[in-house]
Amino acid sequence: MPHTPTGGQPGEQSWLIRRTAEDLDRLGETESIFALGNGWVGWRGTLDEGAPYGMPGSYLNGFHEQRELSYPEDGYAFPQCSDTVVSAPNAALVRLYVDGEPLDLRTGTIRRHERVLDLRAGVVRRDTEWVAPGGPAVRVRSTRLVSLPRRPVAAVEYQVEPVDGPVDIRVCSDLLANERVPERSDDPRAASVIHDPLDAETRRADGVAGLLVHQTPRSAQRVAVAVTHLVEAPEGLATDPELTPDRFRLAVSGPLRPGQRLRLTKFAAYECAHVDGTPAHELADLVTAEAADALAAGFATLLDEQRAALDAAWATADVEMDGDPELQQAVRFAVFHLLQSGRADGDRTIPAKGLTGNGYDGHVLWDTEGYVLPVLTYLAPGLARSALRWRHAHLPEARERAAELRLAGATFPWRTIGGRECSGYWPAATAGLHVNADIADAVLRYVAATGDAEFLAEAGVELLVETARLWHRFGHWSDTGVFHLPGVTGPDEYSALVDDNLFTNLMARRNLRGAADATERHPDAAGRLRVDPAEIAGWRAAADAMFVPYDRKRGVHQQAAGFTEQPEWDFADTGEDDYPLLLHFPYLELYRRQVVKQADLVLAMLRCPGGFTADEKARNVAYYEARTVRDSSLSAAPQAVLAAEVGHLDLAYDLFAETALQDLADLGDKTADGLHLASLAGAWLVVAQGFGGLRDDRGVLSFDPRLPRRITRLAFSLRWHGQRLRITLTPDQARYELPDAGPETAVELWHHGERLRVTGADAVTRAMPPVPDPGPEPASPPGRRPARRGAG
Amino acid sequence: MPHTPTGGQPGEQSWLIRRTAEDLDRLGETESIFALGNGWVGWRGTLDEGAPYGMPGSYLNGFHEQRELSYPEDGYAFPQCSDTVVSAPNAALVRLYVDGEPLDLRTGTIRRHERVLDLRAGVVRRDTEWVAPGGPAVRVRSTRLVSLPRRPVAAVEYQVEPVDGPVDIRVCSDLLANERVPERSDDPRAASVIHDPLDAETRRADGVAGLLVHQTPRSAQRVAVAVTHLVEAPEGLATDPELTPDRFRLAVSGPLRPGQRLRLTKFAAYECAHVDGTPAHELADLVTAEAADALAAGFATLLDEQRAALDAAWATADVEMDGDPELQQAVRFAVFHLLQSGRADGDRTIPAKGLTGNGYDGHVLWDTEGYVLPVLTYLAPGLARSALRWRHAHLPEARERAAELRLAGATFPWRTIGGRECSGYWPAATAGLHVNADIADAVLRYVAATGDAEFLAEAGVELLVETARLWHRFGHWSDTGVFHLPGVTGPDEYSALVDDNLFTNLMARRNLRGAADATERHPDAAGRLRVDPAEIAGWRAAADAMFVPYDRKRGVHQQAAGFTEQPEWDFADTGEDDYPLLLHFPYLELYRRQVVKQADLVLAMLRCPGGFTADEKARNVAYYEARTVRDSSLSAAPQAVLAAEVGHLDLAYDLFAETALQDLADLGDKTADGLHLASLAGAWLVVAQGFGGLRDDRGVLSFDPRLPRRITRLAFSLRWHGQRLRITLTPDQARYELPDAGPETAVELWHHGERLRVTGADAVTRAMPPVPDPGPEPASPPGRRPARRGAG
Repeated sequence: MPHTPTGGQPGEQSWLIRRTAEDLDRLGETESIFALGNGWVGWRGTLDEGAPYGMPGSYLNGFHEQRELSYPEDGYAFPQCSDTVVSAPNAALVRLYVDGEPLDLRTGTIRRHERVLDLRAGVVRRDTEWVAPGGPAVRVRSTRLVSLPRRPVAAVEYQVEPVDGPVDIRVCSDLLANERVPERSDDPRAASVIHDPLDAETRRADGVAGLLVHQTPRSAQRVAVAVTHLVEAPEGLATDPELTPDRFRLAVSGPLRPGQRLRLTKFAAYECAHVDGTPAHELADLVTAEAADALAAGFATLLDEQRAALDAAWATADVEMDGDPELQQAVRFAVFHLLQSGRADGDRTIPAKGLTGNGYDGHVLWDTEGYVLPVLTYLAPGLARSALRWRHAHLPEARERAAELRLAGATFPWRTIGGRECSGYWPAATAGLHVNADIADAVLRYVAATGDAEFLAEAGVELLVETARLWHRFGHWSDTGVFHLPGVTGPDEYSALVDDNLFTNLMARRNLRGAADATERHPDAAGRLRVDPAEIAGWRAAADAMFVPYDRKRGVHQQAAGFTEQPEWDFADTGEDDYPLLLHFPYLELYRRQVVKQADLVLAMLRCPGGFTADEKARNVAYYEARTVRDSSLSAAPQAVLAAEVGHLDLAYDLFAETALQDLADLGDKTADGLHLASLAGAWLVVAQGFGGLRDDRGVLSFDPRLPRRITRLAFSLRWHGQRLRITLTPDQARYELPDAGPETAVELWHHGERLRVTGADAVTRAMPPVPDPGPEPASPPGRRPARRGAG
Repeated sequence: MPHTPTGGQPGEQSWLIRRTAEDLDRLGETESIFALGNGWVGWRGTLDEGAPYGMPGSYLNGFHEQRELSYPEDGYAFPQCSDTVVSAPNAALVRLYVDGEPLDLRTGTIRRHERVLDLRAGVVRRDTEWVAPGGPAVRVRSTRLVSLPRRPVAAVEYQVEPVDGPVDIRVCSDLLANERVPERSDDPRAASVIHDPLDAETRRADGVAGLLVHQTPRSAQRVAVAVTHLVEAPEGLATDPELTPDRFRLAVSGPLRPGQRLRLTKFAAYECAHVDGTPAHELADLVTAEAADALAAGFATLLDEQRAALDAAWATADVEMDGDPELQQAVRFAVFHLLQSGRADGDRTIPAKGLTGNGYDGHVLWDTEGYVLPVLTYLAPGLARSALRWRHAHLPEARERAAELRLAGATFPWRTIGGRECSGYWPAATAGLHVNADIADAVLRYVAATGDAEFLAEAGVELLVETARLWHRFGHWSDTGVFHLPGVTGPDEYSALVDDNLFTNLMARRNLRGAADATERHPDAAGRLRVDPAEIAGWRAAADAMFVPYDRKRGVHQQAAGFTEQPEWDFADTGEDDYPLLLHFPYLELYRRQVVKQADLVLAMLRCPGGFTADEKARNVAYYEARTVRDSSLSAAPQAVLAAEVGHLDLAYDLFAETALQDLADLGDKTADGLHLASLAGAWLVVAQGFGGLRDDRGVLSFDPRLPRRITRLAFSLRWHGQRLRITLTPDQARYELPDAGPETAVELWHHGERLRVTGADAVTRAMPPVPDPGPEPASPPGRRPARRGAG
C-alpha cells in the first residue's frame, strides 16, 4: 500500500529542509543536516564545488585509520591507539569554472541559491544562479543521492547553463582522495584529524570512468571508489580525463550559449575491505562494475528506486503531528536520518554521528543501543538487527578486553570503530560498564518486538550470556546478601566511579534475568556457551539481590549510593557562561556534587519502569530535574518522556522541542561535527514513549497516551512481530489499528491499564483519560529550563 | 663538641658504602647511591670517565625545563605542560686515554676497582687499576665532593699513574652541556627525557678555566657553570683548553713513567636564575669567581670543611644501633642522604628523589612534607624551614590553582618543580588534596619543635590559613551537622575519588585547628590575611564536626567511607608476578576493592595518634595489614611504626629493614632513577617513632620506647627548641640526656606516660616496661610479608 502523507501545501513543507544564501555562514551545520547516506556510504552535504566548506566528509561505515594515544601518566590497559574516521575518496565534487573563474559563492554575486533536502525523495537538490566576478552568469542545478537500495552507489546529476550570455565553462567532476580537512578545535568532544590518511595503491582511467584504490597504513584497510559519467552536452564541448595518485578528474569544457545546457551525471561506487581481504584488483573490478550498473540503470531509475524505498520506510516510520509545523518537520527530519543511518543487510552498526560527520572521531558509543536501536527496533527492525550483529561480530575483542581488565565474559568498548576500546579517559568511559547492559537491553527489546528466534539463537543468547557473566563476576555480595556493583560510572558524566549507580544496577538486573530466560529457552545455545543451571541460578540470585539505592529521608531514589548526601551544586554562583560546566569546572568539583549532566536516574525510570511506583517517579522527576543541567544532548528526551509520564506535559513538550531541534536549530553549536543521532532518536522516543506512553520492558506493548496541549492529532506506527500497528491520538481518543494486516491477524496491547486486542479487521478506539493535575512544574536549575514554545 | 662515633673497625664499615667491579652491572643503582649533593648542586655517582653509565645527571635544585602534556581526552584544568628536571652542564667528567685507548671498564682488564662513599668525609673515593686493551696499565684514583658549606661548589681530584711501564696519557677534564641520556622505560613512574634541553648562550676559556652559560628555551632558566683546574704534572705534559658551545675541555697529555703521577683537581661552581633575573655576564662572573675561590682554598681545605660540616651534622643526626651491622650502615646511609638533600640557606625544597636522579621527572611530591621534613625538623631544622619557605614562595601559584579549580584558599600541586601543578592523571594526583594538610602539618611540627616564631609570623600562618580556607570551602555540612570531605584521593593510590578519606579528614582537622590557633596567637598576621573571628570559628566548627568513618560491625576505622564494605581483593588468584598490581590490573579493579597500595589509615594513626584508642589501633593494624600490598616504598615505614606501637616488634623490625634497605639493596629495582628519600626518611622515623615511640602531634615530646629483640642498644638524638636531646635505649632502660646543654637548660618530655624533666645537669634514666603480648602477628597478604631478618 503506497504511503500517502496527509497535509496539503503547508504540510508539504514539512518534508523539505531548505537552506539559502543566508545560511552560507553556517556551512558546517548545513553539511551535517544535508548529509545523505545509506548506512554504508555517507556524503556530507558539501557544496558540489567543494568550497567553501565547513568540514568535507565522505565516509564508509567502519572505514577508519588508527592513531596513537599518549598519556602524561600511562596506566594498565589504557588503550594505546584509537580508531579515527577518515574520509574515503570524495566522489561528490563537481567544480565549475566560468570564463576561467571558479564558481565560489564567496566571490561574484549570488542571484539565487537554495538547497533542499527532500525527505521523501531522499535527495539534496540545489539551485544556484551566480554571476562570476567578470560578469558572466550561470545557473547551476544539481541533485545528489546516496542510493538506499544500492549499497555501494551514490550519484550526482549536475547541470549548468548560461543565463545572460555565452560563457566558456569548464566542469571538473572529481574523485579526490586525501581531501584537505581543517584543523579542529580543542574541544574534547570534537575529532582528531589525520592529514593525508590514505596511501595510493591503484588507479585507472578509462574514458569517462575512473578509479582510485587507497590504503590506510595503520588500520590496513583498503578502499576502492569508481566513478563513471553520463555527459549530455551540446557539440563543441571537449571531455578530458586526468588521473593522478589521489585524483581522477573528468573535465568537460567549451562554450555554452544561452539555451544550451551541460548535464553531467556521475555514478560512484564505494567498497572497502581489510588489505588481507579482497585484493585490490578484485575490489577495483567490483566498484567499476557497480558504478557501470548504476550508469546503465540511469539517474531517473535511481531516483525512482530511492523514492520507492523511502515510501516503504515512511509507511511505518512517519509521524503525523498537527499543531506545530516546525516540530512536525523536525520529527520527520529526525526519522529520515535514522532511516538512512543503517542497513538491514550485513553487520554494520551506527556511529553516534551516523555517517554525517567526524565528531567523536566517528566512534560508536552507547548512543546506538541506548537511543537509536530502541527506535529502529520499531521502525526498521532489520537495521537494529544489523547493528546487534555487529556487536556480536566483535565479541572476540570484547572477551579479550574483559580478560585484559581481569573481568569475566565480555566487556564492550565505550567508544570504538573497529571493535577495540578507544577511550582515553577511563573514569568517564571504560568504567561506564552499563554499555554492556545497554547492548543486552537492545537484544531483549529487539527479540521481544520481532520474535526473531533465529537472531536470538545465533547471536542474541551469546551477547546476553557474556554480558551477564561480566556482571556476575563484577558484582559483590555484601555480608547481608545484597548484590552490589561498586566502582562504575553511570550515564551521567558529571559523576564517575560511583557505587551502585541505579541505572547500571537495574539494567544489569535486566541483563542477568534476560540471559537466564534466554538460556533456559535455548538449551542448545546455552550448551555451546557452557552455561549450566548453577550459572543461571547465580545470575537470578544476583538479579534478585541487586541493590537499589534509595533515600528514605528524602523519599527519592539515589542516582548512586550516597548521591543525595553529596554537596549540592552552587547554582547561585554559576553564571550563564559557565555552561557546559565541564568546560569551566574541574571534574574534582563536578563529580562530588549533586549536579547531573544528563538524565541518569530518569533514564533508569524509562528503561526499567517497573522498578518504581508512580509516586516515586513523580518525586524522582522533581528531585533530579532540579539538578540536571542538560549539558548533554542525550538528556532532553528521557527527561521529556518522564515529565510526560508524571503529567508535566508542558515541560515534556519543551524538552521534546529541544531534542527534536537539537540539530535543525543547532542548539548545541555542535551540529557541524555531525548529527546527534541519539537526539534525533529522542524525538521519536518522546512521541512514542512520552506522548504515546509506549513501554516495552516486559515484552508486551503498553500505551498510556497523553497529548500535549498544542498537539491536536498525533499519529505514528510501529512494527510488532511483523505487523504495522498504527496509533492515532487526539485529545479525546486513542485509536489502534493494523492497517496492513489481514482480518485474522491480531496484536495484544494495553491502553492505560486495559488489555486490548487489535485485529486486521477491527481497529480499537478508546477514550483518553484526563491527565491528573500533577501540581506545580518541577524547578529546573536556574536558567536551564528548556525554552518555552508557547501555545503555538 | 666533636662527634665521636662508637665502634672500632667493624663499626667503621658502617660509615662506608663500597662498590667494586662486581657491581658494574648495576651502574644506575650505584650512581644514585653514590650521588653527592648539598641541596643546591647534585652530582650522580657516575664514573669519572662518564662511560659506561646508567643515567648521567648533574642537577641544580629547581633547574628544569618544561614539556607539553597532551591528553587523549582533555579536560578542564588539566595541566598543559609539565616541569621536567634536566641536567645542568656536567663538570664531574674526567676522561682518560692510555696510549690512545679510552679508559672504559667494559674493555681491557680490571685489576682492581673500588669506589667508596664515605658518610663522614662526605666524598666518593675511587681506586681503579686497569690494563688497557693494548697492554699498558694505569692506576686511577679520584676523590669527588659536592661542598656542603660552599653552596655552588663541587670538585674532583683525579690522579693517574702508570703501573707496569711508561704510558702516554691524555686526561680530558670536561664541562659538558647536553650530555647524552638514554631513553627511558614505559614505566609511568620513570622520567620523561628531553634531549639537548639547553641552548648555548655564552662561553669562555681562559687557560685552565672555562665557562658555559646555557638557557632552557621553555622554562627560560639560565645556568652558568665555571670550572678551573690545578694541574700537578711532571714536565713534558702539555695542557690544552678547547671550547665549543656545549663543552669546555682541559686536556693534559704526554708521557708518564712509573713513579710519575698526574694529579688534576677540578673546581666547579654552579648558579642558575631566571633569564629575566641575573644577566648572563653577571652569572658568568659569579661562578668564575666562586670556582676561583675554591681553587684558592685548595682541595684539602674543601675536604676539611666538608668533614667539619658533617661532624656537626652527625652530632645530632647519628643513630647508633648495636646488633645489626647491615641496618646500622643502612640507617647512616639514609641519614647522610637526608642531610645532603637540603640547605638551611635560601628557600629551596627537596624533590622526591632529592638531587640523586630524574625519577618522577625530578618532581616535588608530598613525600617531602610527609616523610622527609618530619625527620629534618628534628635533625636539621634549618633544612625543613627552607623547604617550607619554598612552599610559601609558591603560594601565588597555589592560590591561582585554587581559583582555577573553583576552590578557595590555596591548592598546592601534587607534583611540580616550578610551583604549578604537573600531574597528568588527576584522580590519583590533583585529587590528593591531603598534600595541603601535609604542608600544614609540617609547619605545625616545625614550629612546635623549634619555637621559630619568626617563621610562623612570616610564612607559617599564611600557609596554615590558606590551606584551612581550602578545607573549609571544600567540605560539606550534612543535614545532621557533620562535616564531610567528599570526592578526594587519600595517600593510598589503589583508591581514588573517595568520600571522607580518614587520613585526609584527620589531617584537615589538624590543619583547621592549627590555623585557628595560629591566627589567634598572631593577630597581626591574621589581620594581614583578613581572617576574622567568624572565619576562625568556622574552622573550629568544621574541625569539631569532622566525620571519622568507622565500621561498628567490624570494629575498625574505614580508610574512607564505605571502604570496609567494598569487595575484597582476590589474593588467591593473584600471582607473585602480578605485583606491583598497578602494572597488571586496571584501576577499575584496584579502586573498588579493599586492596591498599600503601599505608593510608595506618599513616593516619601515626600522624594523628590521639584519634584512636590502643585497641582500635591494634584492630586497625591487623585489618589493614591483611590488605596492604606495599606496592609503594612509602608504606613500610608507617606500617613499621604502628606495628611497633601495637607490640608486633618482629614485624616492625622486618618492615624497618625494608624501608632502610629500599635503595642500598634496591628492593624495588627503581633505585637507578634516584633514591627514595621518603624511604630513607622512613628508616629514621622507624627508629625514633617506632622503636623510640616518639610522638609529637600535641606539641609535646613523648616517648614510648620498645626495642626489637635484635637490637641491644639504640641511641639517637633530636633537636627540641635548640637543644640536642639524646635518647639511649637498651633492653632494660631508656636514658634521656641533653649532652650539649648547660645545667640550667631543661626539656620536658613523657616516657611511657610519665612526665620527665631532663636538664643539662641531669640525665634521666627509666626502666623499659615489658612489651605486652599482642597476640599472633597480623597476617599480611599472601607472599607480601616483608622478608624475615631472623635473630641476627
